Amino acid sequence: MILLLGGNGYVGNAIQKNLTGRGLSFIVASRASSDYSSLPVLVKMLRELRPEFLINAAGYTGKPNVDACEIHRTECLAGNATLAGVIRAACEQTQTPWGHVSSGCIFTGAKEAGAGFTEEDDPNFSFRQNNCSFYSGTKALGEELLQGAEQCFIWRLRIPFNEVDSPRNYISKMMRYDRLLMATNSLSQLDEFAAACVDSWLQRIPFGTYNLTNPGSVTTKDVIRLILMHRLSEKSFQFFESDEQFMQLAAKTPRSNCVLDSGKAIAAGLKLAPVEDALETAMRNWKR
Amino acid sequence: MILLLGGNGYVGNAIQKNLTGRGLSFIVASRASSDYSSLPVLVKMLRELRPEFLINAAGYTGKPNVDACEIHRTECLAGNATLAGVIRAACEQTQTPWGHVSSGCIFTGAKEAGAGFTEEDDPNFSFRQNNCSFYSGTKALGEELLQGAEQCFIWRLRIPFNEVDSPRNYISKMMRYDRLLMATNSLSQLDEFAAACVDSWLQRIPFGTYNLTNPGSVTTKDVIRLILMHRLSEKSFQFFESDEQFMQLAAKTPRSNCVLDSGKAIAAGLKLAPVEDALETAMRNWKR
Repeated sequence: MILLLGGNGYVGNAIQKNLTGRGLSFIVASRASSDYSSLPVLVKMLRELRPEFLINAAGYTGKPNVDACEIHRTECLAGNATLAGVIRAACEQTQTPWGHVSSGCIFTGAKEAGAGFTEEDDPNFSFRQNNCSFYSGTKALGEELLQGAEQCFIWRLRIPFNEVDSPRNYISKMMRYDRLLMATNSLSQLDEFAAACVDSWLQRIPFGTYNLTNPGSVTTKDVIRLILMHRLSEKSFQFFESDEQFMQLAAKTPRSNCVLDSGKAIAAGLKLAPVEDALETAMRNWKR
Repeated sequence: MILLLGGNGYVGNAIQKNLTGRGLSFIVASRASSDYSSLPVLVKMLRELRPEFLINAAGYTGKPNVDACEIHRTECLAGNATLAGVIRAACEQTQTPWGHVSSGCIFTGAKEAGAGFTEEDDPNFSFRQNNCSFYSGTKALGEELLQGAEQCFIWRLRIPFNEVDSPRNYISKMMRYDRLLMATNSLSQLDEFAAACVDSWLQRIPFGTYNLTNPGSVTTKDVIRLILMHRLSEKSFQFFESDEQFMQLAAKTPRSNCVLDSGKAIAAGLKLAPVEDALETAMRNWKR
């Protein structure tokens, strides 16, 4: 049996769907009935349930967007950093293998010639660099707390999307914003991400950190071109003139826009389609 | 009634002694019986006990020294940062005035001509600067979570000492280390610090941040000279040749050595003797 924390969020739901689809048995822990952010509570839960694997999809992202994390700093720090450390301690005490949903937005930009950051690179959008949103800072600190963790996967998600319209879906967001920021990003097709998390465990790939983004990167204009081509929208999209104008008019905190290299995940046998293909598929099957 | 969190630590004990000495009624909350790091638990506690004031002397310092925080990162982050944010939320929900024991070791060095950092200066030894111990990083992050807090004191302690020999007492530490690091520091006489915390509330000084260090600063050699003069020890003290040698031979993480300006506290009417006087008094009355 697999124990799933944070099973009712956007990512947690996708993982539930994946586990159900494969006929795997799992339990979704509810923080309302048992506060697993407390180490003794979580240790007791693990001793009673004895899951073969734990998935942490809990975290604090901020609604409607990352700006909200600038206000809800304590929840953000508790949910993204401290909780990860508590789960590590509980899993190590009970020798439970586990995986943590982290985020690619602890990076900004790309390497030379547009190459993506690998799992060997240190985060460059974090409290340590003092250039980040509070959200990214807490995600990077969460990964710091997991340095040297035993039997632990760190799965980095980056801007999720799929074919289902949702306020959390990147494609939906692009269509709803009044104005867009020009940027180049790697993205994660949500259901492929969820499958890759579960496959990490089922296929017993080596523990460690994996960038679970679809190979490649896209610009905002690429995505808009596809949206128009697939007739998801007929609107005339407006762009901010610059990052500065975006920060001035629309954002309270800097955004991570970055390119990640998912070669390690692909080499380990995880399935992630090239990002253009994954976007095309989502748009072809778009469900409102 | 005053509610005291962390009442059984080195600082908490001094605060207990001060409250008892003044005949003030207080309750020491025990985390073993009721985990006040959980927001709903703490809110319930505050609604039931209705304290007029809360003092947070809980925190994670690391034993035998700050190097231990490099290993126990989650406890350190939870105890020094997240907990402060949770207490803020609970106190704001219940409109309870409160004070938080913070630390001066979110600073390093001194300002021009050896002047101390004031409450207007931003921490310069923190995750944001990427130059600090994990301990200092979490203390600075704790203060970040309290930015804009209502009815809240932030009291900065720095290297406590008094006349009672103890593994936490700076004078005792100086006598017990094999070799010493040459540095210039502001210090806090522990019992004056505790009195100043309680006086902040009793005298209704304005809420906000206060450097509660004894005015002035001392060098390691000043302290050793006093130790020898007062015949607390007759040992021949050895010094590291440089900060680099200290880091190489004796430390796992950088230390904060800093000068703080406590003029704001003095101007507000809090009583803190000049640091040389406070050191002399402690050594004259030394109790093994």
